This record gives sequence, structure tokens and C-alpha cells, in this order.
Amino acid sequence: MNNPITIAIDAMGGDNSPDKVIEGIKLHSNTSRNVNYKIFGAKDLINPLISKFEISKDRFDLIHTENIVLGEDTALSAAKRGKDTSLWLAIDSLKNNNAQAIVSAGNTGALFLISKLNLKMIENIDKPALSALWPSKKGMNVVLDLGANIECNTKNLIDFSIMGSALHKALFPNENPIVALLNIGSEELKGKTIIKEAYQILNDKNFSLFKFKGYIEGNNIMDGDVNIIVSDGFTGNIALKTAEGTSNFIINELKSAITNSFLGKLSSIINYKNLKNFKNKLDPRLYNGAILLGLNKPVIKSHGSTDSIGFANSLKVCEQTIRGQLIDQIKVNIK
Amino acid sequence: MNNPITIAIDAMGGDNSPDKVIEGIKLHSNTSRNVNYKIFGAKDLINPLISKFEISKDRFDLIHTENIVLGEDTALSAAKRGKDTSLWLAIDSLKNNNAQAIVSAGNTGALFLISKLNLKMIENIDKPALSALWPSKKGMNVVLDLGANIECNTKNLIDFSIMGSALHKALFPNENPIVALLNIGSEELKGKTIIKEAYQILNDKNFSLFKFKGYIEGNNIMDGDVNIIVSDGFTGNIALKTAEGTSNFIINELKSAITNSFLGKLSSIINYKNLKNFKNKLDPRLYNGAILLGLNKPVIKSHGSTDSIGFANSLKVCEQTIRGQLIDQIKVNIK
Repeated sequence: MNNPITIAIDAMGGDNSPDKVIEGIKLHSNTSRNVNYKIFGAKDLINPLISKFEISKDRFDLIHTENIVLGEDTALSAAKRGKDTSLWLAIDSLKNNNAQAIVSAGNTGALFLISKLNLKMIENIDKPALSALWPSKKGMNVVLDLGANIECNTKNLIDFSIMGSALHKALFPNENPIVALLNIGSEELKGKTIIKEAYQILNDKNFSLFKFKGYIEGNNIMDGDVNIIVSDGFTGNIALKTAEGTSNFIINELKSAITNSFLGKLSSIINYKNLKNFKNKLDPRLYNGAILLGLNKPVIKSHGSTDSIGFANSLKVCEQTIRGQLIDQIKVNIK
Repeated sequence: MNNPITIAIDAMGGDNSPDKVIEGIKLHSNTSRNVNYKIFGAKDLINPLISKFEISKDRFDLIHTENIVLGEDTALSAAKRGKDTSLWLAIDSLKNNNAQAIVSAGNTGALFLISKLNLKMIENIDKPALSALWPSKKGMNVVLDLGANIECNTKNLIDFSIMGSALHKALFPNENPIVALLNIGSEELKGKTIIKEAYQILNDKNFSLFKFKGYIEGNNIMDGDVNIIVSDGFTGNIALKTAEGTSNFIINELKSAITNSFLGKLSSIINYKNLKNFKNKLDPRLYNGAILLGLNKPVIKSHGSTDSIGFANSLKVCEQTIRGQLIDQIKVNIK
């Protein structure tokens, strides 16, 4: 039997909230036992949804809040908005040990700033990193940093390797973490000084948490030979968004190609199941939930435009980071 | 009637050369008039191919060379190999004005170093940039730098904007160049200092050659709203290779999805023509030919593993850069 855990949820952030949030909780609660949801938001909006989706009373607490962080707030103006927003109070519940992880589909900058203010960095980690899941031929990669830090130093990249490995282990306990540094060539000599220095340290020192596989180029990210890909936040963000754009482009081209003629449409119908499997495998909702690593509690950002299925997946990420003892794993391995 | 032009060709570089090179020349010569090919390489290997592909004597000169640059040469060892390699002599023919552009499918580092040694930089340009074509929803982008410079300063990015626009104009004379800087957010405040400084200059100064559209994120590269995408060589290389990897991943997933069952196979056969159109549109041979910009002559790198169709396309790029007066356009616009 799983230990009981509690997830704090900002119900008011993102498109079509709190509807998708409450429906997402319902979906997650159907498959996960011993999870309590601490829901922060406007009770007038949330209570009817809780009735609609028939969420059992013993699964959640609803903490009513009047104030919310807006999508257009800067991180600073969101923090200044006060300590009574659904976002602030949800984060505060972690600080007070009333919950073990937080998820929000709202304002990313606000989530990160208010989390940093309240949850503090893990000792010996200088910078937090934003990480996400990225599919490969053989399973799932963790990629970081995706934009929390434009500039990074060598120690940051080492820390990211440890934090990314701890996250991968929490999410996929049966796999062995294998780290690579994102670079523009596979030879030792290439790349920026910071990356080359990180290479030396990762190569020389023996980390018990992960194996180090050297450099990886952009075209090999999805090969599945490594499962943790480390870079500074600028490069990681460019890589992730370029992959997104390429994927959208190809799938749109494909759609118009196969529905361009009567025969094309007919054969697409025959092939419906296979194409659906293909689409499902690439469904971005499966990978929903970016994780801010480096703070004393797991902070999960759901995509603002996802739906209830995507939100349920980010609740699953919350649960896995708690049950997989992500934070303890990081603390043990950071020296 | 087109003016007569001459392209210098290193026939010995890349996989399956000189076969694909000579067949590529045949394919290009079928569609392009008044182009002369100056072929550098081993006559014993090349002459039988010229007979096989029935290339007319008045279309080419063959300059016999014994020595070649090897794929595994470093740039420096390739330069030290001497002035009698097919690559060195091909570049030398540009220096002596016996040809107006060079193409090689061989060693990239060697091509760039020997070109720099012999052809010199255009005045007022500090660093060369590697550029390539990248498809978009509406046409074709020029993206640069793709790896010639790991670190760039603000002036480099301005120069790249001008050179990329001149290249786009030479290749697509009917379109108006629109430049954007690759960044991690579309707001003015985000990104690295160098990029922000380049933004200010590009925004304030009125360039006659192109319009400036601000920042672009990785997921919008293929939208077609801009057609010249500028970045430092590290970031550009990561973006290009990540796009390649994503594209390969999706197409492999698709292949296995549609051929996973009898019905799937059947419907793929019915849909063959549409899927072929889709594949053709994404055929990397169409985009073959990376252009090193900043030297006094156009230097084109064909992919080493391309075939004769890809090589013919890089000859087309050579022809377009010459006829489109790429170098003059750069010189007029660089101050």
C-alpha cells in the first residue's frame, strides 16, 4: 500500500481553469490511491465542478482564495499581488509541510519566483533548472535546463546532471540514468569552454547516480542512447522549441498530404487505427509537466493550454516525484 | 541568354565520389545552360564516368590531381597536405578568377580553412558564417550561423543578417528578405546581451536589403513569417541538428505505424502518391548545399553522404549565388 501523500494545486492558472484542473484531478484520482489534493481557488467556481465530476470528499481539501495571479502579470507584479493568491497559498502550503509538491498551469515566471522566495534552494545548488520529458526511440529523456538560466557556469551543468538523473530515477525507477552534454560535436575538443570543463569533471569523477556518456548533438537527442540531456537554459530552450516546431510542421504537412484526394482520405480511414497510435505516441499531453529542480520541494508547471488529460499527467509527475523521493535523492548526491 | 559562368568542383570529396559528383554534373548540365564545370580530381576515375554519363566536351575542363584531402584529415593537416590536392586547386582556381564559385562534398573543416587562406574575407566582415536552407510553410528560410563560430559578438549578428539576406535574394529573387534573431522569447527584454544589442541596431537602423521582424523562437522557425534566421553558430547548429533529429524520429515512427499491419500496408499502397509527395517535400537532397558566407567568393559544401541528385542541387546553389551576384550584394550592403 502506498503512503498517503498530498499535492498542492493552484486551480486558477491557465486556459479554461478551474474546469480542466478539477477534471484532471478526477482523472488522476481514478488511477492513483492515497493521494490527497489540496485545491486553492475560488469556491464558487470550483464547488460545482467537484459535484459535476463527483470527486469524493475524502480525497481533497478546498482552500478558498479571492485573489489570483494573472497570465499577463510579470513575475514581480505577481509576487506583489500579495500572499492571498491561489498560487502563493498553494506554494505556502509546501513551505508549511501541508503538501509535498505543487502544480500550476498558470503564469510560469510567477510560479518560479514565488517558489524561490518561499521554498529556498537546496544547499550547495546555486541555480534552479527547468526540466521536461522528451520522447526517444527507447523511452523518455529528461532534458534540462529549458530556460530558467540564460547563462550557466560549469558547476551549474554538473548540478543539472545530478538533478536530472534524480528526476529520471524518480519517474522511471527501473532505468539507469545516462547523462550527456548537449554540444555541437561529439569530439572532446569542440564546444564552449564551460561545456568542456563540465565534460572533464563528469568524466573524471565517479558519480554513483548516473553514467556519463560525453557529448550529444541535437540530431541524436531522440536516439535513446542517453536519457538525461544537459545544457544551459538558452540552448535547451532553443532545442526544445525547435523540436516542437519541426514536429508540428511535419504533422501538418502529413495531414494535408494524406487528405489531399479522395483516395488519400479513403486510405487514411482504413489506416485510422495505425495513424491514431502514431498520433497518441506523439501526444504532447503525455509529456505535460515541466519540473523546476533545485528547490526544497518539487514544483511542477503544467502547460497553460493543456486539457484535463494533460493536467492529470502533470499530477502524475507530482506523485512520482514525491514517491520517488526526488528531493532526498538530489540532496544525497549533491556535495 | 544567361552569361557564361564557371563552377569549380572538387570531385574527390564525400562518400561515393567521384561517381555522384560526375552524375550530379550531368543532371545539372541538362537543365542549366552556359555553365562550365572545372572538375578537379583523378582522371583515371573521372574520365570513364564522363563517358558513361555522356557529358559534352564543351561543358567541362578536367584538371588532373594525384593528391586528395581525406575525410579524417583535420583542417590543418588537410592544408599541410599541400597545394596539389583536388580541394586546394579547386579553391585556387577561384583566387585566380578561373571560376566564380566552388563546391565540395568532402572535408568541411578543410574546405573552410583552405578557402579562408586563399579567398580572404570581404572587407569589414570579421567572421564567416555557415548558412543553409530550411523549409517553412511558405517557402524556404536561410538560417545562419550553423557552426562556423561558437561565440559571436553584436557586429557578427548584424553582418550575418546582411549576408543571409543577400543569399536569400540571390536564391529567391522574387521574395523580400525578412530577418529575425533566434531567441528564447519574443519580448524585447529577454535573451542574451549580444542578441539584445543586435536587436536595437537592427531595429533602429534602416537596412534597404531587408526588413527586421524582431525575435523568433525555435517553434516558429518554420512558420514562414520571416525567411532569414540569425544566431550564433553554437545555437544555430543545435537548432538545425535538433530539427533533423526530430524529423527523422517522426518519419520513422510514422513508417512503422503505417506498415504495422496488413490493412496499414494496403492503405499505404493506395496512399502511395500522396505519401510520396509528402516525402519529396521533405527530401533533404532538395536543401543540399551549405554556403560559407563572408569570403570573396561563394564556397558551397555539399553533404558528404548525398547522392547525385543532392550534388546537382548544390551545383544549382552555386549557379544561383553567381547569377544572383551574392558577393556584390554583400559588399554593397556592408559598410
